[in-house]
Amino acid sequence: MNNEHCILATAPASVILRELARHPFDLTAEGALRSKRITRHVCDGGPFRLLYATERIDERTLDALQTLADECQVVEMFKAMRRGAVVNKIEGCASENRQALHTACRDIFVDAPAEPKATAQAKIELDKLRCFLTEIEQGAITNAAGEKFTGILHVGIGGSDLGPRSIIEALKAYRLPGRDSRFIANVDPDDAARALAETDLAHTLVCIVSKSGTTLETRANEQLVRERLRAAGLDPKRHCLAITGQGSPMDNPANYLRSFYMYDYIGGRYSGASMVGAVTLGFLIGYDGLIDFLRGAATIDWLAEEPDMKKNLPLTMAMLGVWNHNFLDFPTLAVLPYSQALHRFPAHLQQCDMESNGKSITTTGATVSHQTGPVVWGEPGTNGQHAFYQLLHQGTEIVPTEFIGFIHNQYGQDCLVDGTSSQQKLFANMLAQALALATGKDDANPNRRFSGNRPSCLLIADRLTPYAMGALLAIYETKIVMQGFCWGINSFDQEGVQLGKALASRLLGFLTDINAAPDGVEKELLQQALHPLNEEKTRT
Amino acid sequence: MNNEHCILATAPASVILRELARHPFDLTAEGALRSKRITRHVCDGGPFRLLYATERIDERTLDALQTLADECQVVEMFKAMRRGAVVNKIEGCASENRQALHTACRDIFVDAPAEPKATAQAKIELDKLRCFLTEIEQGAITNAAGEKFTGILHVGIGGSDLGPRSIIEALKAYRLPGRDSRFIANVDPDDAARALAETDLAHTLVCIVSKSGTTLETRANEQLVRERLRAAGLDPKRHCLAITGQGSPMDNPANYLRSFYMYDYIGGRYSGASMVGAVTLGFLIGYDGLIDFLRGAATIDWLAEEPDMKKNLPLTMAMLGVWNHNFLDFPTLAVLPYSQALHRFPAHLQQCDMESNGKSITTTGATVSHQTGPVVWGEPGTNGQHAFYQLLHQGTEIVPTEFIGFIHNQYGQDCLVDGTSSQQKLFANMLAQALALATGKDDANPNRRFSGNRPSCLLIADRLTPYAMGALLAIYETKIVMQGFCWGINSFDQEGVQLGKALASRLLGFLTDINAAPDGVEKELLQQALHPLNEEKTRT
Repeated sequence: MNNEHCILATAPASVILRELARHPFDLTAEGALRSKRITRHVCDGGPFRLLYATERIDERTLDALQTLADECQVVEMFKAMRRGAVVNKIEGCASENRQALHTACRDIFVDAPAEPKATAQAKIELDKLRCFLTEIEQGAITNAAGEKFTGILHVGIGGSDLGPRSIIEALKAYRLPGRDSRFIANVDPDDAARALAETDLAHTLVCIVSKSGTTLETRANEQLVRERLRAAGLDPKRHCLAITGQGSPMDNPANYLRSFYMYDYIGGRYSGASMVGAVTLGFLIGYDGLIDFLRGAATIDWLAEEPDMKKNLPLTMAMLGVWNHNFLDFPTLAVLPYSQALHRFPAHLQQCDMESNGKSITTTGATVSHQTGPVVWGEPGTNGQHAFYQLLHQGTEIVPTEFIGFIHNQYGQDCLVDGTSSQQKLFANMLAQALALATGKDDANPNRRFSGNRPSCLLIADRLTPYAMGALLAIYETKIVMQGFCWGINSFDQEGVQLGKALASRLLGFLTDINAAPDGVEKELLQQALHPLNEEKTRT
Repeated sequence: MNNEHCILATAPASVILRELARHPFDLTAEGALRSKRITRHVCDGGPFRLLYATERIDERTLDALQTLADECQVVEMFKAMRRGAVVNKIEGCASENRQALHTACRDIFVDAPAEPKATAQAKIELDKLRCFLTEIEQGAITNAAGEKFTGILHVGIGGSDLGPRSIIEALKAYRLPGRDSRFIANVDPDDAARALAETDLAHTLVCIVSKSGTTLETRANEQLVRERLRAAGLDPKRHCLAITGQGSPMDNPANYLRSFYMYDYIGGRYSGASMVGAVTLGFLIGYDGLIDFLRGAATIDWLAEEPDMKKNLPLTMAMLGVWNHNFLDFPTLAVLPYSQALHRFPAHLQQCDMESNGKSITTTGATVSHQTGPVVWGEPGTNGQHAFYQLLHQGTEIVPTEFIGFIHNQYGQDCLVDGTSSQQKLFANMLAQALALATGKDDANPNRRFSGNRPSCLLIADRLTPYAMGALLAIYETKIVMQGFCWGINSFDQEGVQLGKALASRLLGFLTDINAAPDGVEKELLQQALHPLNEEKTRT
């Protein structure tokens, strides 16, 4: 990897792309969107197929995007990352100085993994997990009454919550008979109260996830859960698992049934396929399902090393995103899965993308001169069609959209209404939205006019299986880091969360005794916020 | 109401605001954010207090925003709407030509309601509901086996789903003993499959919501549920309720236990406090709780008629939003509740706001020359702090933020860790975020610099009770329609969803027999989307 490589602002291809962006491909022109265009703009990757004829691109744009990717050494950087390069750093500044090896924890299907040491560590944890799950299954590990565990309560926040939660919600259809899962994340005590009210604690494992073992929210929620276990006459040590860094305060057999390790070289938001997600997923759908999930992710990781955009699905998505965001200047990205099982996946991507790429300095410490990560948001279709799609079609904000859909559903329960199944209606609606956004429609009534030229792409697989879910996760993780390489930023740290933490800690100190706080903005803010409200107060 | 009133693009105050926007108040300047500023920028409304010192405004900005509101006759239009003016129309074009009377259905606490006829209709439905709930409670209405109903399954989509769902999730802490609720919305058959797998159908009422009685998704899901009821040996007519327009195909006592009516003059996304939300909410938390909820909404509706922005909380929020969106040019809005119970409220607002104000023509049919509704998104704090807040603090996209928080939690279960409760941690974190976004922080390390000047406001109440939830809903509904009046658009129709529907219907026809489809884009898109994928397919 050549350290003198370009980033977006300095790459010669950017000049060409800026010029092309003055007249992007017009999807609304007569005959612009024809069948040949559909056929030509297809990219397969693992179980997924990407259709992107409805983006505002032509061959010149795609060529220039390939050149930009080459000039920014996007694929080289990705390969270096997978082989253990210290990519989580800012030159010349105090920074985390770490590797980013989330791909290593699923690189277990080849004889020569990209980074053997990290993969060896991942295999040790997977073996521990396999044994543990077998002991649970066979009743070698039970509660104090000798009864089997049937539920799992996952306690974590941020990367230790949204990744696992989105994956597990997506794959609930595959859960082992009788098994169930719940989550607690928020420091809001009502989050724990509600989850605990629904939980059969006696038969529940509690999976507590914190790399440092000191995360504020997770510590508070762990304590709430432990108090409830004790109040129910249960021994917390028989129920609680620690997913944590080796040697952290949580890595303590006196307090936990088992420890599974996570490592510094995997950032929270990229940790879904590590022990952070694997323990709960493995308990819920079984070890074989977990391995299928990892295989899906590994398949994408390897094919993403292909330098030719046309054969590299995540790279294509990354560069289309750069085109929409940096050259067509669209500030947000909607991810719209046509699958209710993916209802939390946009929230996970919001985290993974915005925490990775919501940055303002380059890896050399300079202020960026281009936009970095977009605002990412979304909800499942067809629900969204009856909610915010009005703005997508006729609003003044243009929103590039990534649709995700499946030919078959998970449960196999369906019914015919008016001669078509619900699954067919779902799938047809997704395709129709991409066409409608692209082509628009004129009308004599100005309120029924659609300007069109609203770009989107479609990511399609046969069915949302564990294998497909692993691939989907890896597609997005890879897309995100590739965009970060293109922007020349560090997609692996999160210094931006520190200031809020520090101020919260100060305010919390004052909250317990406002009068002791020094006069100033913080005291006044607390007083105004806590001031007894004038009106009839909040009744009940 | 003077029909010659201004809209944002033509209002003289816009010129002043554009000038002020060139140098908005600098929150990062030495001493800019002082205690007096906090005290001065407070607005109380019902159970809520708005703190907005952390917006980029000064007295001149606020004066100009008040003038803009006056010039656009925002409050006059709001009052006219409440009194039955036909505000849902486009002059000179075919349009819905309807009133927008969502406020009438809760205007039941005064002797002289703003629009007596609609309120009288609402009272009839409320009386029907009260009697029905009493009969359920007393066991006068039961399942065929004579057992009481304990669960309710709410089937609807869009406005018939997200409003009710966000309210009911928010108030689940107040549910009557033994009562529970579930939802089905998506045409994805897996949505129904999962909900039904968790439902004790024998003791469940099914609340089916569709104004027209013909909504595609809801018809399909109703049929799925009816088939499951019959398969379980249950009589659908004893379980199914119809929430629909009088005389719709669903208004049929042969098929439903009861009908409750919704009216043309209430749009789906504004229908949370009508029978659309009331039946499920009333069943879950009881009739008295429902009335408290309505009282909270009615309180806000009346105070929103105050022309002075300083005394009108929803108007203040509306005009601050216009400032951020139209003058400071920020394209999105984040709504971040520090309350896990509000986890679906941002999704509801996303619908209510984006479907209302994602428009490109004015009420006179002219193309707008200013931006209309922003992209609205959000997730609960503190979860979001560990996810996307990195971008809020250090990204290149600036996101105006509305925080929502409560001094007390709902369940009253908490624990002390390091001397403070989880509730205190939650509340302190919210206040700290507003301060951190506003003031920023310099640092020798460029990666630890925070530019600040990221605007936000705080909406605070004592506790999230039914009364407070009603008020919160009305604050946002009012804010949204007031912004629509300011922009001169029709916030009550949704023509933008029609094109996708029409194309979906065509594609669905071809999907059942692709070979019969004419050659062209649609056929090719279907073929490419359904093409057997090359790779090892989606394993199971």
